Amino acid sequence: MTHDCSFLEDLDLADDQLSFAEGRRDSHATDFGTEQSGGVFPDAVVYPERTADVSAILEAATERGVPVTPYAAGTGLEGNAVPARGGISLDLTRMDDIVDYRPDDFQIDVGPGIIGSAVDEHVAPDGLFFPPLPSSGDISTIGGMIATDASGMQTVRYGEVADWVLGLEAVLADGTVVETGSRASKTSSGYNLTDLLVGSEGTLAVVTEATLELSGRPEQIRGGRAIFETLEDAAEAISEAVRTEVDVAKIELVDGLSARMANRYLGGDLPDAPMVFLEFHANHGIATEIDLCRTIFEGHGVRQFEVSADETAMADLWEARRELAYAMRNYEPELEPLHPGDVTVPISSYPEIVREVKRLADEHDLLVPCYGHAGDGNLHYSPLVDLDDPDQLERGERVYREVVERAIEMGGTATGEHGIGQGKRKYLEPEHGAGAVDAMRSVKHALDPTGTLNPGKLFPETEAGEDVRRPRR
Amino acid sequence: MTHDCSFLEDLDLADDQLSFAEGRRDSHATDFGTEQSGGVFPDAVVYPERTADVSAILEAATERGVPVTPYAAGTGLEGNAVPARGGISLDLTRMDDIVDYRPDDFQIDVGPGIIGSAVDEHVAPDGLFFPPLPSSGDISTIGGMIATDASGMQTVRYGEVADWVLGLEAVLADGTVVETGSRASKTSSGYNLTDLLVGSEGTLAVVTEATLELSGRPEQIRGGRAIFETLEDAAEAISEAVRTEVDVAKIELVDGLSARMANRYLGGDLPDAPMVFLEFHANHGIATEIDLCRTIFEGHGVRQFEVSADETAMADLWEARRELAYAMRNYEPELEPLHPGDVTVPISSYPEIVREVKRLADEHDLLVPCYGHAGDGNLHYSPLVDLDDPDQLERGERVYREVVERAIEMGGTATGEHGIGQGKRKYLEPEHGAGAVDAMRSVKHALDPTGTLNPGKLFPETEAGEDVRRPRR
Repeated sequence: MTHDCSFLEDLDLADDQLSFAEGRRDSHATDFGTEQSGGVFPDAVVYPERTADVSAILEAATERGVPVTPYAAGTGLEGNAVPARGGISLDLTRMDDIVDYRPDDFQIDVGPGIIGSAVDEHVAPDGLFFPPLPSSGDISTIGGMIATDASGMQTVRYGEVADWVLGLEAVLADGTVVETGSRASKTSSGYNLTDLLVGSEGTLAVVTEATLELSGRPEQIRGGRAIFETLEDAAEAISEAVRTEVDVAKIELVDGLSARMANRYLGGDLPDAPMVFLEFHANHGIATEIDLCRTIFEGHGVRQFEVSADETAMADLWEARRELAYAMRNYEPELEPLHPGDVTVPISSYPEIVREVKRLADEHDLLVPCYGHAGDGNLHYSPLVDLDDPDQLERGERVYREVVERAIEMGGTATGEHGIGQGKRKYLEPEHGAGAVDAMRSVKHALDPTGTLNPGKLFPETEAGEDVRRPRR
Repeated sequence: MTHDCSFLEDLDLADDQLSFAEGRRDSHATDFGTEQSGGVFPDAVVYPERTADVSAILEAATERGVPVTPYAAGTGLEGNAVPARGGISLDLTRMDDIVDYRPDDFQIDVGPGIIGSAVDEHVAPDGLFFPPLPSSGDISTIGGMIATDASGMQTVRYGEVADWVLGLEAVLADGTVVETGSRASKTSSGYNLTDLLVGSEGTLAVVTEATLELSGRPEQIRGGRAIFETLEDAAEAISEAVRTEVDVAKIELVDGLSARMANRYLGGDLPDAPMVFLEFHANHGIATEIDLCRTIFEGHGVRQFEVSADETAMADLWEARRELAYAMRNYEPELEPLHPGDVTVPISSYPEIVREVKRLADEHDLLVPCYGHAGDGNLHYSPLVDLDDPDQLERGERVYREVVERAIEMGGTATGEHGIGQGKRKYLEPEHGAGAVDAMRSVKHALDPTGTLNPGKLFPETEAGEDVRRPRR
């Protein structure tokens, strides 16, 4: 697994652009979904500062058969940017420029290393924003979001990252620089390489610049929280609201167990009951949309439905959702959430997938908190297990796996927003079928014939690599 | 250019699924943008009725090196479905089933041969519609729209066809059936083969089924027409309205010359002045949006601004736009519109591209009517020439070409909604650069290594085929 990367010293790079130090290599061997790298570390970490650096590094690495894994903030959940075969970790965080900004066309060109919220901050004075930012938008990079076709709370109203990328500059494995897409709002010229690269997890090319579309901020924003008797009521209410096309900008489900974790962490007097967190964006008729949502929720026995236009009150209503990640980590010291990924299903199947999680939790006698961007049919769920108890671990893995299998059976996806990475490789073929996976392999081979870029990811493989991903602890 | 297609008789097809008759071959050798085929006809026309037929035909054709060009309604403008190398015309019009309809998920699965408006009719009882239908939606097929990533008047509000395709069933050149996408509203699992196939003009695979997303119909619709003093005023007004994010569902520009054609054809007393045709869709606040639009238009000297909620009155206001295509064909018997395609530019450059068309028309002493889906930065323009006058023809071609070149310089595209086909092959590389075109060729080679599917399209080639497309006359 180790590769001789000394050739990097012969490239035209400054001293501080290249490191073989153990600390640097170690920090590039994990992401938010993996505490341990499974023993695979990059042999070198390189910090390109311009497209020409990326091109030179890729050309030289491909010539020598050395793997290159793009890396940035390391906030992925599926080991997407963790090197599975050693080689070079290509750290793009220094390529974080705002290259051009055209507010008249609602467009901005940025480097891949820029943090998502920095884009929002730059364009806010013009009343614009980048709508598909994920919840991690203030720590994760645009490049990483493009790699996984990320999405987030506002996707229910505004779509996913792919919907807001107009074009890319990217470097192929042989060092060729390509530009994709158009600054026109639509084009039917040639193959859509932009959407082929978005979501390809750095396995086809390294993105060196992205042209993003922006949206005007809505004139009115309201935040709210609804509390339900049962999880099924909450899921049914959400499904009906989405199918009625209530104009929500965020509609987040939190189950009773997650609510209990948040309540214990935060104190306060909220019931340990399923909650739905809401945000409404509109230029007109926001009260009508809120009333419609309330009526639908009342039809599903909502206990409490509060909405506010006041910023502080909105933040208070959302507190339990906002602090959920911290709360889960602090719930029971001996129990660890196993795998933090998501599944996503058609909205009519949402109540069913939620029921399945709870059924499997009961069947296997485990705590399985779940929550998610429910308006997209998205569900995050994590069996809580004592990692030192092999039986619990095995049951947890089984619940985790069976939920993914149910989601695929419902016509859904094994991963709605975090990519396949290393963690979900075995589900690619069950979801897409052998023909489509073979076509994907053909495309991979066409653009990266020697397999330089991010090997050991996305595709199912029989060799080593299947189990390098370990649960966070 | 002729290929022995007798092997088709050995496949498991009914007699009426296969024809070698000259009349059938002839009718499959033109589209709406070409009256003459340039002498290239398919050697056989086949009518598959199921995916297995398509698979068997492609497998056998690929084995024998016989080209296959998918065909349906023949409404393309760039020779996209006209066989450039003979071989088989694969007529998909019989595969027009509604395979499954899931109104709860706003999804419908259809065959590629279904006419666009038939989808709308099927889902209308549930208050749903398929928003990106092009103007030809009542005669063109979903398969053709997918092939060119078509779009239309409502794209300014709802997006293009690609935005409404969730997944595809498609057959590769070797006969392999692949399924792409997901029924979940978002996925980050594997490469986005769906968006790679959408807009690939049948050069990568033959689509045999599509899963489309649907939208709920807006509660309120208003239609309107604005008349301006000058074309530049109209273009500036549109550009400002879009940049102000006025919520329009249609915003169509028609220049004074086109208006004159429509007026002469229709009679009536409208001035021969630039017009903007409008439609507003909303559930709330439609009057506010209309007022905002009116105010912006007044700032650009609008002469008349009429809006109605009455269906008959709306149809009257739109009459000139609706009848424009017929009007143009009946204007001057000796003058023919040269090439009916479009360019599309960033919205801030819209006034500039409109100015360029008129400047070039003056410079070359030609009539060049122009109109388009202006809200997307889209412009259709056709130099009017006497096709028997070589000098006029040459000047017309020059104007046509220079407008495309200007659009590309502005960061726009040579073709916003009709694909490259045969007509715009020479612009692929100027628009995308050699690196991207080479990457597209790699993808083509990966999925169709023997070049069975729709050869002589999309990519620039040095051999014959560049000039098979002739202007309609």
